Amino acid sequence: MTRRAVVLLSGGLDSTTVLAIAKAEGFAPCALSFRYGQRHAGEIAAAQAVARQQGVSDHVIVDIDLRVFGGSALTADIAVPKDRDLARMGHDNEIPVTYVPARNTIFLSYALAYAEVLGAADIFVGVNALDYSGYPDCRPEYLRAFQKLADLATAAGVSGQTRMRVHAPLLKLTKAQIVLRGLQLGVDYSLTRSCYDPRPDGAACGRCDSCQLRLAGFAHSGLRDPAPYV
Amino acid sequence: MTRRAVVLLSGGLDSTTVLAIAKAEGFAPCALSFRYGQRHAGEIAAAQAVARQQGVSDHVIVDIDLRVFGGSALTADIAVPKDRDLARMGHDNEIPVTYVPARNTIFLSYALAYAEVLGAADIFVGVNALDYSGYPDCRPEYLRAFQKLADLATAAGVSGQTRMRVHAPLLKLTKAQIVLRGLQLGVDYSLTRSCYDPRPDGAACGRCDSCQLRLAGFAHSGLRDPAPYV
Repeated sequence: MTRRAVVLLSGGLDSTTVLAIAKAEGFAPCALSFRYGQRHAGEIAAAQAVARQQGVSDHVIVDIDLRVFGGSALTADIAVPKDRDLARMGHDNEIPVTYVPARNTIFLSYALAYAEVLGAADIFVGVNALDYSGYPDCRPEYLRAFQKLADLATAAGVSGQTRMRVHAPLLKLTKAQIVLRGLQLGVDYSLTRSCYDPRPDGAACGRCDSCQLRLAGFAHSGLRDPAPYV
Repeated sequence: MTRRAVVLLSGGLDSTTVLAIAKAEGFAPCALSFRYGQRHAGEIAAAQAVARQQGVSDHVIVDIDLRVFGGSALTADIAVPKDRDLARMGHDNEIPVTYVPARNTIFLSYALAYAEVLGAADIFVGVNALDYSGYPDCRPEYLRAFQKLADLATAAGVSGQTRMRVHAPLLKLTKAQIVLRGLQLGVDYSLTRSCYDPRPDGAACGRCDSCQLRLAGFAHSGLRDPAPYV
């Protein structure tokens, strides 16, 4: 039987590529997405389209309203920063207001729960620590700490029979390398959405961190981003 | 200004005692409870009554439906075990079906998010590794791993200015010691609810793990449990 793996799928460029990688590594992916009160809720429809296109049979969408806490430009009435300096992004200790407190910890916790119920021992996450906004919960040392937690947190961890493995295949890739890897694997990036602050019709702003990183990734690979922009 | 702390509050005996301990240690507690699709959802009303009685001004109740995953007697149509052998509980590697996969990891992740938004650096949790059911996510090594994760997961962790401290003051107390500590601090245990499988009128079954541990705790302290039983 094909081994199942939980894949965190936002519907953006990174997680969509990770889904294709999990499949290429021989896993049967079970996708997990979150309606968390995000400003850019259109990414859920993108995640559904991506899952369909990649033939994912199990896709769970969990409702968790992180607006109860707020504290981020993605979950509260705070403006999304535009035109930040791409060269400095992620290289100083400044964390932008688009950071959602503890979001990756919450997402990975749910992935752990889902994996444990499925009897799966593999979790895939699209975090990246090269072309990124400098979020604390995207760093390699953070992921190692979560791996350690996962080893201890589950029933399988007690018996010592199965270790939960957290895969972050994009961690040390540039955005251009991610795009090229995805295209090799047949990813249709026109289905993906990355913008933090899209227009009501879904067109990306082209100016938030996420758009800038994505556009630069396509530019560096000599390709055109097929997603719609303003 | 009094320092704020996030206190995970289920409305049961342990977390209610922890709330009183956090107050006694000088913190202004912000309580956090979950409506997670639990069979014993009456504990939410208990948590509200406890928070009111202890003068908690901030109490957030988060809706997270863990029934999307199931896999536990508390969140799926699986019978709650009764009359298990109290002496063996938590002392073998057998994990009962009342274990909810990754629940404490999910709860602590939310606590981390809430603390970060509040600017708080302290989280209190009522886990206990002596008189317990043997859940993996109640063990000291699990808590240490979460502490390590919390140090790395937040914006404060990046700047190195603030470390998030996870307090588990009941970890090495017996249930009897917990009850006595709570009574010293003026806890009204008649407001608390611990049963996994209460009657519709709220009366506790007296036979699930949680009821057995609680009743034994009161018995060993020579006291009567004021909660209603069948």
